[in-house]
Amino acid sequence: MALDWLKFFRTEPKNTANLAKERLKVVVAHQREGRGRGPEYLPKLREEILNVVRKYVDVPETAVNIQVQNEDGLEVLEMNIALPEQRRS
Amino acid sequence: MALDWLKFFRTEPKNTANLAKERLKVVVAHQREGRGRGPEYLPKLREEILNVVRKYVDVPETAVNIQVQNEDGLEVLEMNIALPEQRRS
Repeated sequence: MALDWLKFFRTEPKNTANLAKERLKVVVAHQREGRGRGPEYLPKLREEILNVVRKYVDVPETAVNIQVQNEDGLEVLEMNIALPEQRRS
Repeated sequence: MALDWLKFFRTEPKNTANLAKERLKVVVAHQREGRGRGPEYLPKLREEILNVVRKYVDVPETAVNIQVQNEDGLEVLEMNIALPEQRRS
């Protein structure tokens, strides 16, 4: 069963990227039991994913919100992007 | 304020990838108000992100769980990976 992402989107804190009518969210999360660091490649993997997103999504920096969370063996990179509204012809 | 991802991890359905001691989760989610398709680049963006992950994470196919969810203007690609336990010397 898939997670209820729709509900999760709706309970997000309100900021510009979260209020946009069209949004993209990319999350890279690593979790391990107990303390300890993630794999050595994790920072590079996250950077490459951010680069892929930037390559496709042409928005100003103000439309991008990046958050990093580190606690209890969990490292989360979360990227929220407010997309420009598409023309529907 | 960051989302409570830790709580979110803990409420996940139980399957192999979710039970591993060390896990990586990558989510690409697109949401737009009302009906309608995501941007045309979305499938390629998702594919490239999956390729980046596969480049870094060397695990058997059975350690990877990919789910796609489409509903109410929300398209989610979710990749859960059970990582091998690292040696800590």
